[in-house]
Amino acid sequence: MTQRILPNDQQWMRHALALAARGKGFVEPNPMVGCVIVRDGKPLAEGYHEKFGGPHAERQALAALPADCDPAGATWYVTLEPCCHTGKTPPCSDAVIAARPQRVVIAAVDPFSEVAGGGIAQIRAAGIDVEVGVCEAEANRLNAPFIKRVRQQKSWVIAKWAMTLDGKIATHSGNSQWISGEASRRRVHEVRGQVDAIVTGIGSVLADDPTLTARPPGPRTAARIVLDDKAELPLNSTLIKTRETAPVYAVVRSDAPQQRIDALRKAGVGVIVNESRTRSGGVEQLLTWCHDQGMTNLFLEAGAGAMASFFEADAIDEYHVYVAPKLIGGSAAPGPLGGQGLATIAESPAMEPLQVESIDGDLFITTRRTNR
Amino acid sequence: MTQRILPNDQQWMRHALALAARGKGFVEPNPMVGCVIVRDGKPLAEGYHEKFGGPHAERQALAALPADCDPAGATWYVTLEPCCHTGKTPPCSDAVIAARPQRVVIAAVDPFSEVAGGGIAQIRAAGIDVEVGVCEAEANRLNAPFIKRVRQQKSWVIAKWAMTLDGKIATHSGNSQWISGEASRRRVHEVRGQVDAIVTGIGSVLADDPTLTARPPGPRTAARIVLDDKAELPLNSTLIKTRETAPVYAVVRSDAPQQRIDALRKAGVGVIVNESRTRSGGVEQLLTWCHDQGMTNLFLEAGAGAMASFFEADAIDEYHVYVAPKLIGGSAAPGPLGGQGLATIAESPAMEPLQVESIDGDLFITTRRTNR
Repeated sequence: MTQRILPNDQQWMRHALALAARGKGFVEPNPMVGCVIVRDGKPLAEGYHEKFGGPHAERQALAALPADCDPAGATWYVTLEPCCHTGKTPPCSDAVIAARPQRVVIAAVDPFSEVAGGGIAQIRAAGIDVEVGVCEAEANRLNAPFIKRVRQQKSWVIAKWAMTLDGKIATHSGNSQWISGEASRRRVHEVRGQVDAIVTGIGSVLADDPTLTARPPGPRTAARIVLDDKAELPLNSTLIKTRETAPVYAVVRSDAPQQRIDALRKAGVGVIVNESRTRSGGVEQLLTWCHDQGMTNLFLEAGAGAMASFFEADAIDEYHVYVAPKLIGGSAAPGPLGGQGLATIAESPAMEPLQVESIDGDLFITTRRTNR
Repeated sequence: MTQRILPNDQQWMRHALALAARGKGFVEPNPMVGCVIVRDGKPLAEGYHEKFGGPHAERQALAALPADCDPAGATWYVTLEPCCHTGKTPPCSDAVIAARPQRVVIAAVDPFSEVAGGGIAQIRAAGIDVEVGVCEAEANRLNAPFIKRVRQQKSWVIAKWAMTLDGKIATHSGNSQWISGEASRRRVHEVRGQVDAIVTGIGSVLADDPTLTARPPGPRTAARIVLDDKAELPLNSTLIKTRETAPVYAVVRSDAPQQRIDALRKAGVGVIVNESRTRSGGVEQLLTWCHDQGMTNLFLEAGAGAMASFFEADAIDEYHVYVAPKLIGGSAAPGPLGGQGLATIAESPAMEPLQVESIDGDLFITTRRTNR
C-alpha cells in the first residue's frame, strides 16, 4: 500500500491535535481526540471529544456540518484511529464510512485492544484511502497517559515541585512557604483540577497540613492519596476535615496498627493496605491500584522522601518544576529528591529536552522520561 | 530645564546600547559605550568603544561619517555621558561640541568621578540641547560591573553552576562530569574569555584538577584564583602547569604554613594572604584586591562550600545557572550553595525575575540581585 502524505496534512493534523487538547481533564479515562473535515483545502467542520461519556470527535465534527452540506469526497483528519466497537457510543468507523470521505488521515493507532487497527481496517474495507502516522509522535505524546493506562495498566505520574534557584524545596529549618509566586501556584491549581489524584507523603501532611484541592475547582475532582506507612494521618487534619470535597486515601503498610487503620476508616478515609515488601514494589502496586480505580493521571506533590520512592522505582513519567528567583543555601536544606540517589551522572534516567515557560519571574520547567 | 523625549529617542538609544554591548570583554575596565548620529530620522554614522585604549564611541562614530558629510544639526545618541577629561584619549565632550549637534541624548551619567556630569555641563554650556536618562535603566544594567567598580571599588561577581533538574551539582559520591551538555559548556567558555578572573575553591581543584581557561580563547585571559586557606594547591596541578597560559593566584589564610606559601611562590603562583578573620571579610577583601588589580568581572566557578562563602557575604551580583535534563537524587548529594543557609524563605536576597534561554535541551538561567 502506498502512503501519500500531502503538503497540508501536517497542518490540518496539528489543528486537529490542538482541538483534541481542549479535552484535557474532561475526557479521561478516554483519550483526547480531535477531528477536522476538509474539502478543496477548506474546513467543512471540526470537533473534538469534549467530555467523558459525550460524543466522540468524529460525531462532533459531523454534527457541526452546516445543514445543507454533504461531506462526501472530503478528507478527514482524526488524531486517533476511529473506534470500531460499541462502548458508551456507537462505533465511529460506521459514521465515517457513511459520510463517504475520499480519504481519512489518522495520526495514531488506538492501542485499546478492542480497536487496535480494527477501525482502520473497516474504513479501508469500504474502499476509502486511509493514511496513518501523520504527526504520530505528537499524537502519542498528547495521549501518553492514556497509552500507559491501556498498555501497562498503570496510572501516569506527574511529579511537581517548587524550588529555589539553588535547588532547595525548603530551608534547613523546614520553612517552605512560599517559594514560587502566586501565578505559579495558580498554575499548580489548574493542573490539580485536571488530574485524578494528588499523591503526597505523610511527612508533608504532618508538616504543612495541606488541603490539596484545586482552587478554583477544575473539570475533575482529584482524590487525595497520602503515603502513610504507619497510618499516622491525623483525624483532625485538613484533608480529613474536607473529605466531602474530595476523597481521601491513606496507603498504609500491612504492619500498620489496626486500631489506627480502623480509626481512619471510621473517619471516612479509604485505607489501601500495601502488601509489597519494597518501596519500589509499593509504588508499582499503588499505580496499579490507581489504574484499577480508573485513574489516568496522578499528580505527585510530595517531600524529598516520598518523591525519592517514586524516583527510585522509575515511576515518574513527567516533571513539573517551578523555579523561583530565590536563594537560600544550606547543605542540610532539602532538595526535591532525597533518598540515596544515583552514584554517577551517567546513571540519570534519560529525559526529554527541558521545556520552559516564564511565569511572572518564576520559571515553569517541564520534561518527561524519554519514550513515555 | 524642560526635558523632551522624542518618539524615536528610545529606538535609537536601544540601537546604541546594542552597539555598546559588542565591546563586552574587550573594553574593561572601561565601560561599554555606543553612539549613533542621526539627522532627519536617518543615521549618519555610528560607532562603539571597541577595545580598551582605543577610540571612544563618539570618535568612532565621527570617524565613520562619510567624507563629505558635515554632521552639524544632528542628534547624537550616546549610551554614557561623554568624557570631559584627558585619559588615554582626549575629551569626547570637545569632539561632540566641535561637530555642532542640535541635540545630544544621553542614557546615563558617568559615575566616574572625573566625569560625573562634567561632560553634560560642558555640552550644555556650548548651547546644545542635552537630554539625559533615555533608557537609563538598560544602560546602567549593561555597565553594572563598571559602576560597581567605580562606586564600591570592588569587582563584580558572577556565580556560575550547572545542576540537574533536581538541583544537584554532583552525586553523593562526588561525580559531576558532565551535568550540562556540550553547547552549555561552550557558553561557559565564552564567558570565561570575557572576564578578568575565574575564582574557584581548593576543594574543586583537589577533586577535579581543572584547567579553568577559555577554550577557545576569548578577548581577555582570565587569571585563575583559588580560595586555598591552607595553601594546599598541589605543585603538580594543571593550574600550576598551565601558569604561562594564564596567571594563578592562591588566596591563603595568614596562618597557612609559610613553607607551602614559599613553595607556591617559587612555582609561579601569586599568593594573596587574606588577613580577614571572617569568611565574609575574606570575600570582601578579595573583591577589593581584585578591583585594585583592575579587574571588573569575576566568574565564580566553585563547589558548594566556596560558593556559600560568597553567598553568605552577599557578594554575588549575578547568577549563571545551567540546568540539565538529568535527575540524580540523594539527600547527601550537594546542591550549589552549601553552608548553613537561611532559616526562612523570606530571608532570600531580592532577585530580578529569572531570564532563560534554551541551549540544546539544557536551560541557561540568569538573574541578578536587584538594584545592582
